[in-house]
Amino acid sequence: MARVSPEHLEARRRQILDGAARCFARNGFHATSMQDVFGEVGLSAGAVYRYFKGKDELISAIAREAFAGIRGAFEEAAGMAVPPTPDVLLARVLRTFLEEEVPGGDRQAFARLIIQVWTETLRNDQLAEILDEGYQGMRQAWSQVVEAYRRSGVLPTGVPADHVARTMIATAQGFIAQQALFGDVRVEVLEDGLRALMSMRVPEAS
Amino acid sequence: MARVSPEHLEARRRQILDGAARCFARNGFHATSMQDVFGEVGLSAGAVYRYFKGKDELISAIAREAFAGIRGAFEEAAGMAVPPTPDVLLARVLRTFLEEEVPGGDRQAFARLIIQVWTETLRNDQLAEILDEGYQGMRQAWSQVVEAYRRSGVLPTGVPADHVARTMIATAQGFIAQQALFGDVRVEVLEDGLRALMSMRVPEAS
Repeated sequence: MARVSPEHLEARRRQILDGAARCFARNGFHATSMQDVFGEVGLSAGAVYRYFKGKDELISAIAREAFAGIRGAFEEAAGMAVPPTPDVLLARVLRTFLEEEVPGGDRQAFARLIIQVWTETLRNDQLAEILDEGYQGMRQAWSQVVEAYRRSGVLPTGVPADHVARTMIATAQGFIAQQALFGDVRVEVLEDGLRALMSMRVPEAS
Repeated sequence: MARVSPEHLEARRRQILDGAARCFARNGFHATSMQDVFGEVGLSAGAVYRYFKGKDELISAIAREAFAGIRGAFEEAAGMAVPPTPDVLLARVLRTFLEEEVPGGDRQAFARLIIQVWTETLRNDQLAEILDEGYQGMRQAWSQVVEAYRRSGVLPTGVPADHVARTMIATAQGFIAQQALFGDVRVEVLEDGLRALMSMRVPEAS
């Protein structure tokens, strides 16, 4: 048997994941078959199964990578002396991951895939675990951003960082839900909304 | 045939909808059968079918009522000279509809039903239409609240009211997604997070 370099293995893995992501985003998780994936990536069943046992493993790997990418973006912001305010930071991450780098290029189809994955976790424990880990990671990264806001004097109140983190994540999740259900949401909407909230004149926190 | 009063008809309808909502919330939309509904409400198939043709009509009626209730709460706030700030208002509505008045009393199961309904709209046009109408109504009601903020001087920026409305709805939807996926979210988390956002010291809007 011919020797295969690690670079070659990684390139194949990448090719399969990118093709599978395009299939899932286009037709949804349930309506995609492994045959669709073989066709999309242009590889035989044997070649694909050498890397991934089935649809569950493919969607799990895709979800893991997406979480890692998003988490990295927040960790980078947390490392700055004064991180971008939430409206700017969240908009930047959403633009990258839900507009520019969407597999297959159809934003609504991609958002629909995400809400399908949410529903799928209700009966798929492995996927539920991956989502759980992914969100834990995002909460930690966002909490670090919130601590950086506090250190730099941008955030004066003593609210738990994790509560701010979860609220920011909730806003992004709701954006995905609206994109999936109605399809006409631009990132600018959320950016404006967050900026308006930040501009509100509120009574002193007690 | 005996005459039946409108009050009796309405009470029966109520009884069926409440029972169906408990079934759906407990076991999800797909795992609930019409037999489950008959058992839960204690009525015969014939008695239930006189009011609702099937599961689709039941979930549609339940969704319509939920939207009407939530919309009413925001419209009431919009009618006030100074509506409660978003943290207080959103928390109040979420407490009522996702904590206190949850059919069957299990909050995570109820949140899971909601995300199942989101996914279900991807292949059920009638349900998609009801959700679309429901969200349009919420956007309008929230936009009225935002205009009231503006009139009362609480919101100084000129951001489109609809963008603020959609952001607030997104935050609530994300709260539902987190409740469904992880089950450990209290309304207080979102209330804190929104209050923190409102307290941030931001550069002047350009």
